[in-house]
Amino acid sequence: MYVAVDAMGGDHAPGVIVEGAIEAARQPGIGIALVGAEAPIRDALARAPDLSQLDITVVSAADVVEMGEAAVQALRHKRQTSIRVATELVASGQAAALFSAGHTGATVLAARSALGLLDGVERPALATAMPTRRGVAVLLDVGANADCRPRHLVTFAIMGSVFAHVVLGIEAPRVGLLSIGEEASKGNVLVRKSHRLLEETGLPFFGNVEARDLYAGDATVVVCDGFTGNVALKVSEAMVEMIVGVLRETGAATDPSDMFRRRLDAAEYGGAPLLGVAGPCVVGHGRSSARAVRNGIVLAHRFATQSLVPRIEAELRRLRGSTS
Amino acid sequence: MYVAVDAMGGDHAPGVIVEGAIEAARQPGIGIALVGAEAPIRDALARAPDLSQLDITVVSAADVVEMGEAAVQALRHKRQTSIRVATELVASGQAAALFSAGHTGATVLAARSALGLLDGVERPALATAMPTRRGVAVLLDVGANADCRPRHLVTFAIMGSVFAHVVLGIEAPRVGLLSIGEEASKGNVLVRKSHRLLEETGLPFFGNVEARDLYAGDATVVVCDGFTGNVALKVSEAMVEMIVGVLRETGAATDPSDMFRRRLDAAEYGGAPLLGVAGPCVVGHGRSSARAVRNGIVLAHRFATQSLVPRIEAELRRLRGSTS
Repeated sequence: MYVAVDAMGGDHAPGVIVEGAIEAARQPGIGIALVGAEAPIRDALARAPDLSQLDITVVSAADVVEMGEAAVQALRHKRQTSIRVATELVASGQAAALFSAGHTGATVLAARSALGLLDGVERPALATAMPTRRGVAVLLDVGANADCRPRHLVTFAIMGSVFAHVVLGIEAPRVGLLSIGEEASKGNVLVRKSHRLLEETGLPFFGNVEARDLYAGDATVVVCDGFTGNVALKVSEAMVEMIVGVLRETGAATDPSDMFRRRLDAAEYGGAPLLGVAGPCVVGHGRSSARAVRNGIVLAHRFATQSLVPRIEAELRRLRGSTS
Repeated sequence: MYVAVDAMGGDHAPGVIVEGAIEAARQPGIGIALVGAEAPIRDALARAPDLSQLDITVVSAADVVEMGEAAVQALRHKRQTSIRVATELVASGQAAALFSAGHTGATVLAARSALGLLDGVERPALATAMPTRRGVAVLLDVGANADCRPRHLVTFAIMGSVFAHVVLGIEAPRVGLLSIGEEASKGNVLVRKSHRLLEETGLPFFGNVEARDLYAGDATVVVCDGFTGNVALKVSEAMVEMIVGVLRETGAATDPSDMFRRRLDAAEYGGAPLLGVAGPCVVGHGRSSARAVRNGIVLAHRFATQSLVPRIEAELRRLRGSTS
């Protein structure tokens, strides 16, 4: 089973991407299609002494969507971008899942257009697994949609619950709505309307979750618009970096970075699943390390073997049936 | 010069509030009017051995806005709430500034209605000083307005710049717009429209600031809607608490809490100034310690002595003049 990997996406592409792909391909059952500029990819591959034993193929793609580009324009004008070719491998069935650490907007757009959206999904969502005091929770959307409507947040809740259950092994996921106060009356217009709509679904809805309680872990699936979610995620990351910096400066006896990394670092999960498109996709951080890339590819592979997409589809159908 | 203090506001009121007020009153030139239920306030005051040397008066108010109440209803039905009586002391000139660690919504509403808004201000904003790698920056709005329009964010930028200059001593404040990408095309509808509008003002506009760069300190005044700002602030606080918890659990040699507190804790600043109302107001955290309360009261007093409000008013007038 192949994972299509955009080898050109990410701050340190293709070197770090290829390195992570090699590590992932050492795991049993994982084949990889590296998509991008052939020469540098093959150069990077040559560094693996066990290359002949790994199931890695290279698929050529001439163009790249640069981080500063507008996604719509880039995909319109460049026909052979690595992200487009990679998503088409999934659409045609040559690959079972996608991993990209490149331009998020372009990845979302390419995946939507090559794979299509699941029935009942108007907007796909990027989900992130985050550590809590009790284990782990899912936050979504963290960046696929800057502006959302209440019904989008309801779909996010359904998709996030399936992800939490199937992939993270959370027995009975509880849905929370990110807000600035616990009461139903608190929040912005989107949140207040979404609150009412979420109460009407068949989902176990916990209510509003204040940002300060995000890490408490009472709600295991927390939904929000992609602007707020992205800000929350990035602020957390920045805060961790700053604290690590402060501790280093002050010469703390223990280097805290190792301690944090296991529990707090995105590298552990390797990427954010893009939920709602008709194929398993994982979007990695632009600054992904080789280890994060490996984890992201393994995660994408797991989505395919665990039938995440058909299970989300079934749950969307079931809840639509129960409310209509 | 008196600071009116809502003695009943906050999780540990009135005990902690009175304690903080006593500490503040020990500073030269600071008088305090403690507003609330007389008996418990006087009990708490009796613990100060030097009470007779302090300039503290008690102003009776029978009601309290509880944390779970809706602000509008509470202020409508309870006529003698401590927050209303405290703001009226400022409106009548008996006090020069306000400090409250109580219900934020009720404080904002009471301050607006007793003091009024400055000319050109449609929405007041809560600002918070946050530590950066280079010093300090101001983030606003962090909770007064869950839904904002672009012109509100422009006013926040003006008010935040005056605050940064006058109170925080930042020589030439640079305005940033909190977003999920640096390019002007990134962000939600509000951010994209606000970006264009901010470019047209006479302010030194830095452009979009990603959440991950918030602590870098390139922009020293960062504006956003109150929902996003509140989430960003609370997520940061929660992250610090979680990391301190992790470090304690793992038995780190150094207790990190002291290290963090100086640079990261809200207690250092003691509260968020409410900018845009026609009088100096500081809103403290509900969980304020006595030290945070003292700092918040001192901050409110400083706003009055440094003529923060008239200077914001002058700057609003100046920029209105230059663009019309």
